[in-house]
Amino acid sequence: MTPFAQWMKTVQADMEHALAAYLPSVTETPARLHEAMHYATLDGGKRVRPLLVFAAGELFGAAPQALARAAAAVEMIHAYSLVHDDMPCMDDDALRRGKPTVHVKYDEATALLVGDALQAQAFLVLSEGEGDAGRQLAMVRLLARASGSVGMCGGQAIDLASVGIALSQPELEQMHRLKTGALLRAAVMLGAWCGKALADDETAALDRYAAAIGLAFQVVDDILDATADSAALGKTAGKDAADNKPTYVSILGLDASQVLAEKLRGDAHRAVEQFGNQAQRLRELADLIVQRKA
Amino acid sequence: MTPFAQWMKTVQADMEHALAAYLPSVTETPARLHEAMHYATLDGGKRVRPLLVFAAGELFGAAPQALARAAAAVEMIHAYSLVHDDMPCMDDDALRRGKPTVHVKYDEATALLVGDALQAQAFLVLSEGEGDAGRQLAMVRLLARASGSVGMCGGQAIDLASVGIALSQPELEQMHRLKTGALLRAAVMLGAWCGKALADDETAALDRYAAAIGLAFQVVDDILDATADSAALGKTAGKDAADNKPTYVSILGLDASQVLAEKLRGDAHRAVEQFGNQAQRLRELADLIVQRKA
Repeated sequence: MTPFAQWMKTVQADMEHALAAYLPSVTETPARLHEAMHYATLDGGKRVRPLLVFAAGELFGAAPQALARAAAAVEMIHAYSLVHDDMPCMDDDALRRGKPTVHVKYDEATALLVGDALQAQAFLVLSEGEGDAGRQLAMVRLLARASGSVGMCGGQAIDLASVGIALSQPELEQMHRLKTGALLRAAVMLGAWCGKALADDETAALDRYAAAIGLAFQVVDDILDATADSAALGKTAGKDAADNKPTYVSILGLDASQVLAEKLRGDAHRAVEQFGNQAQRLRELADLIVQRKA
Repeated sequence: MTPFAQWMKTVQADMEHALAAYLPSVTETPARLHEAMHYATLDGGKRVRPLLVFAAGELFGAAPQALARAAAAVEMIHAYSLVHDDMPCMDDDALRRGKPTVHVKYDEATALLVGDALQAQAFLVLSEGEGDAGRQLAMVRLLARASGSVGMCGGQAIDLASVGIALSQPELEQMHRLKTGALLRAAVMLGAWCGKALADDETAALDRYAAAIGLAFQVVDDILDATADSAALGKTAGKDAADNKPTYVSILGLDASQVLAEKLRGDAHRAVEQFGNQAQRLRELADLIVQRKA
């Protein structure tokens, strides 16, 4: 196992413990809601956002405890968005991470409440713990902006409105910058803010990095949706084409999409050049995002 | 018009402006989502939670600007919960505050996103502005706890699980303490925290007040659901009985429910006795909650 693979495995295992600890216990009332929140959050996913939090945090000397808290908060926002996205009135998906989606396993009303409660829990987790209150408050603002109507939720609204519409590549990019990019950027920034205060050029470098991997993430998602099978993805493949949604593959074609993903990987590497060897994990994560098979 | 009625009118008008200012502009992308967020939040409701924020805040010398911010945050949480509650998978209601509900006026997916984005906006608003960062962070924690799985969302989960089940009065109380009471209590506490730091006995007094009005609010809701008509309520009357939901009226009967509401009004008055004349608005709000006709 490479050092990077070993590091990933460690962060992923630590996150599983942190998430379980930061969620309300399944023995607490209402037990069924708490059980469903655990079901939606634990035992699944590559934990890309937590990995970004840790990679950016280590670059700025952040304490592991603070990183685990920030990573758990971002991952809860991500988990809630998947639960709501999968509901019948949105993407109507029955399979997620190889398991039945929350509304299938439980029911729609529970899925709605699981998402709502996970969002509140994310802000609770981020506002608890020890640390500089001003910095923590800034992190709450960052996460709220990244997940709200000018971030993730806004991107989903644009996505909904674009079904069956021929988007241009810039319009598609704007949608994904909000839908997926905003939270990935928040993960990078939250990780960095757990460490020292950033200089303006450091913030700008991380912004360029986050923009490149955010877009790369979506381009690769579209490639996989068009080429992989459901078993490998752990979710229903070919959905976007079936739903008549604009994708990079539908706009650029498969070959040009692969070229774009590779270009964005290079952009991400160059963005963090100034940090030298210390940014090794961030570079490896860019590689992971572009080269993943699921 | 009584001084209290005049005060209410002023706070309600100020809140309308504050909420509009603290929501993203409808001209900002995605415009349709922002328009639906305004539709869900503005021009409606008695603004009971903002009134509680202001009444408690004035008792402790809080600045109007800070109170408007806290009140807007609580009201956004309340507004999001109504949007999600009205959805087909929950209460399936077509009418709210005399207008079509969000999923009827727009669509279900938009209603889901409006609720999600309003929750994020509430935490954004509460974490912005000037003030002591430690205090603001504590307010974020309070609102997150009150609205999450051990607060409002938890109460809704218990409510869902109790359809068609014969709850005892203590079980019904526990459900409402979470479902409605937690956010009403948060409104009182956020208002107070906008002013000076509270002594333990002051916190305890406000807690007793909040518990009494929280329960009174629900008892009166149940009485109105059983006795008023839809036009007066601005929402569908008789829903609880039709949905086979346990209510105070179904458990205690109408007369005993009215006696209980009156008793809770007295409890609320006694709870804030120590504050003397300064708590006049809080007492008048308790009267309003019990004596309202809609």
